[in-house]
Amino acid sequence: MTALGTLYGVGVGPGAPDLLTVRALRVIEAADVLALPRSSDFGASVAWSIAAPIVKANAAQERLRLTFPMSKEATVVRPRVLAAVDAIGERLLAGRAVAFLTEGDPSVFSTFGYVRDEALRRWPSLRVEVVPGVTSITSVAAIGGIPLADGHERVAIIPATYGVGDLVDLLERFDTVVLMKLGGAMPTILEALERTGLTDRAFLVSRATMAEQRVERDVRRLEGDTGGCLAMMIVKRSDRSGRLVNEAAPDATRATEAP
Amino acid sequence: MTALGTLYGVGVGPGAPDLLTVRALRVIEAADVLALPRSSDFGASVAWSIAAPIVKANAAQERLRLTFPMSKEATVVRPRVLAAVDAIGERLLAGRAVAFLTEGDPSVFSTFGYVRDEALRRWPSLRVEVVPGVTSITSVAAIGGIPLADGHERVAIIPATYGVGDLVDLLERFDTVVLMKLGGAMPTILEALERTGLTDRAFLVSRATMAEQRVERDVRRLEGDTGGCLAMMIVKRSDRSGRLVNEAAPDATRATEAP
Repeated sequence: MTALGTLYGVGVGPGAPDLLTVRALRVIEAADVLALPRSSDFGASVAWSIAAPIVKANAAQERLRLTFPMSKEATVVRPRVLAAVDAIGERLLAGRAVAFLTEGDPSVFSTFGYVRDEALRRWPSLRVEVVPGVTSITSVAAIGGIPLADGHERVAIIPATYGVGDLVDLLERFDTVVLMKLGGAMPTILEALERTGLTDRAFLVSRATMAEQRVERDVRRLEGDTGGCLAMMIVKRSDRSGRLVNEAAPDATRATEAP
Repeated sequence: MTALGTLYGVGVGPGAPDLLTVRALRVIEAADVLALPRSSDFGASVAWSIAAPIVKANAAQERLRLTFPMSKEATVVRPRVLAAVDAIGERLLAGRAVAFLTEGDPSVFSTFGYVRDEALRRWPSLRVEVVPGVTSITSVAAIGGIPLADGHERVAIIPATYGVGDLVDLLERFDTVVLMKLGGAMPTILEALERTGLTDRAFLVSRATMAEQRVERDVRRLEGDTGGCLAMMIVKRSDRSGRLVNEAAPDATRATEAP
């Protein structure tokens, strides 16, 4: 009996090919099968378009394209997950190693989690290995020229399309609020920023680190907008790190724990 | 007049050398000076111990060791930041490129933010470039075999030593709570887990992806413990992703937005 192949979930980072890790490169190049998620049957896989320019071509390798439509409905997504695990399972049962590529990191808002769970339900002895990647969240902070959090700050990560009714409260309780999946939530977000006086502390980045990257520092301009593809907004209440070193008086609340 | 050198903040990832990105490798190997933070004058730099096994030796390169003691007190940390920027600035003014290495990602709980701000205060035209890295946060999720967040989940990242008085409330409002910098907060954390019935949904990882990695799935054993060095706890309220594909009845609240 052939031993089951290993299933890898591989994060390819936010968009720039050279933000793949050395391990991701190695795992992708060695895999028998690349499972490449895309959002429509006729579109390209964003994860593959990130990795392809830096990965060595491997003629023996199969590229298995899997479609997961953008949807909040389990009735839409679930059959696609089951079909994906059918196709991936066929390869695993033949002893082939399958690398499932994901944008960013496989643990953050990725379909890989569903695929893993269903595969483990069917084959409990399956070996699954996750290769973490650079997330778009820290890339957006880097692009904005701010820390996501200095040593003592709290961060909330909110998928906005699933509800931002308590955003005013969150903005008051967290030093940094990261809003992802903006969709139709923009009017509510802009209103909450106005109410908390934080409009000028917010910025938006879409397609971070990609050639088409867009940065919008005046979020008022986003009225009636969704921010575009792969957009994310960061709201940073204060700028304590700057004050740590600049202010004359020592202030323990602005210290860091180094390094 | 010599042009100012560029200051790079380079994330080297959570611990395993092959989790450096291709860009981090390139920037580190090309830099004239490596700024290597450490927590004591006699200790090693953790960031350098992560990168050294995978970086090509460069005999022309200077290694500048900078000490930032672990402290919450600005009076302790601030003079070290100023001294670090003195030393780094001397090199930048000579036109040399300086790469400041940080564990994980430079935007997450790193001293780099303070160094950048002070350097930009002194030399406003300085070119600063941040190379994002894999954070220990997603690595710990990967090690735990769970998603940090599926498509619709909320995440809170809390540095515990700065206060966990509202932890019960946070555990009720967020799908995933990441507790970092555990220190003396462990008794309060364990009590909040008991009160919310989430003790069995928590796990701790220290020194993620390093050879000395420790995973503790029964957090009750941590009574009177700080979890050790570089420890992090993840509390995941539910396990929806598993249910998405396993349950017979469709349930829109458990859908994902793919891919």
